[in-house]
Amino acid sequence: MTALLPLVGIGVDVHAFADGRELWIGGLHWPGEVGLAGHSDADVVAHAACNALFSAAGLGDLGAQFGTSDPEWAGASGLKLLGEAARRVREAGFEIGNVSVQLVGVRPRVGGRRAEAEQVLSEAAGAPVRLAAATTDGLGFTGRGEGLAGIATAIVFPRT
Amino acid sequence: MTALLPLVGIGVDVHAFADGRELWIGGLHWPGEVGLAGHSDADVVAHAACNALFSAAGLGDLGAQFGTSDPEWAGASGLKLLGEAARRVREAGFEIGNVSVQLVGVRPRVGGRRAEAEQVLSEAAGAPVRLAAATTDGLGFTGRGEGLAGIATAIVFPRT
Amino acid sequence: MTALLPLVGIGVDVHAFADGRELWIGGLHWPGEVGLAGHSDADVVAHAACNALFSAAGLGDLGAQFGTSDPEWAGASGLKLLGEAARRVREAGFEIGNVSVQLVGVRPRVGGRRAEAEQVLSEAAGAPVRLAAATTDGLGFTGRGEGLAGIATAIVFPRT
Repeated sequence: MTALLPLVGIGVDVHAFADGRELWIGGLHWPGEVGLAGHSDADVVAHAACNALFSAAGLGDLGAQFGTSDPEWAGASGLKLLGEAARRVREAGFEIGNVSVQLVGVRPRVGGRRAEAEQVLSEAAGAPVRLAAATTDGLGFTGRGEGLAGIATAIVFPRT
Repeated sequence: MTALLPLVGIGVDVHAFADGRELWIGGLHWPGEVGLAGHSDADVVAHAACNALFSAAGLGDLGAQFGTSDPEWAGASGLKLLGEAARRVREAGFEIGNVSVQLVGVRPRVGGRRAEAEQVLSEAAGAPVRLAAATTDGLGFTGRGEGLAGIATAIVFPRT
Repeated sequence: MTALLPLVGIGVDVHAFADGRELWIGGLHWPGEVGLAGHSDADVVAHAACNALFSAAGLGDLGAQFGTSDPEWAGASGLKLLGEAARRVREAGFEIGNVSVQLVGVRPRVGGRRAEAEQVLSEAAGAPVRLAAATTDGLGFTGRGEGLAGIATAIVFPRT
């Protein structure tokens, strides 16, 4: 049973491309693509989703929840972080409606694997997670292929 | 009749300015302004709105729905795409609550024509579409006047 | 009493760093940090929240509501603008669900003062305002430390 008054959240995450790294986006490995820098797998889609969920539930953000001090989470995959974020949001008294993530950048082309990505993200979150993609027409750091940005929104419902 | 559990979506679109093109933003023609590059009319407001609606409804994004293979939609106006996006969202079983779009860039100044833009966008979507605008204080590609970005959020309701 | 059909809004605000200015972010003064340029206090968090609220309620944006012609608001603090924005949204017939703001940039580090910022922002809005933060891995104008961006989403409920 849910209350009538949902809460919304927004989240952003950005990582730079880096040689010698595997690319993980939307919970999937993308063979043959240049990866992203970061202590974690740098999955900007999963990270943006976490930030949106935490903010909707009033739980801060990735840094507050998975700070570098905790070795269990410091190097965790985006998918694992999303699963734990969803668990913490529910533990705090909320049901998750859905999460929508827009990936911004030139590569990878997610279209052919959207269904696969949405499936693993939704399984991790226990709620529908949607993934869309847009390029920036050659403009900005995403257009120049320097990195990828994820921007997400989420809606949660306080349990009565 | 709508269910109690709405879904949210987010969408982004970016196009670069290009000489010799007409500017179409928010479903309106802006005489005397430099236009945006693109196969379509490059209306970043309408396109961002489409992406937000598709994502909220779990229908992917502009590329998935209006791929370049279909000549009916490849060169369609943003307003026509928004109308068709709304139709497909409803066909998939959702009512549209509203869409909110933030235009980011220096030109055009939408303030004087906001009501007009909101009217044509809302008529196309069959639901309230709001248009706001912000500059970026000279920063980034929008601040340098290289292009325009639209970012949108939407809320939809599964029909019972 | 609220209706069943909430409306959502999105808002963006960006300001450039400028020497000789105090930094105000999230309704708080940040001693020792470089400030942001602007006629107002340039609080991108509060301003993005205002834009999201106005858009959700169909009231335009900061420029439309607090144009430069009105001396009462031209130089007002972000917190004061947020309070007045919330008042106008309620006056227009809406209850405010919540607002979620993502600050994007390198400095300041909001983690240690998130609770304090959320408290003053929420008091100003009369509804929960959440503040999260993300960096952009050295990319773009936020990554180069040229300025700060705020991006917000809000949900409002038409009063029955």
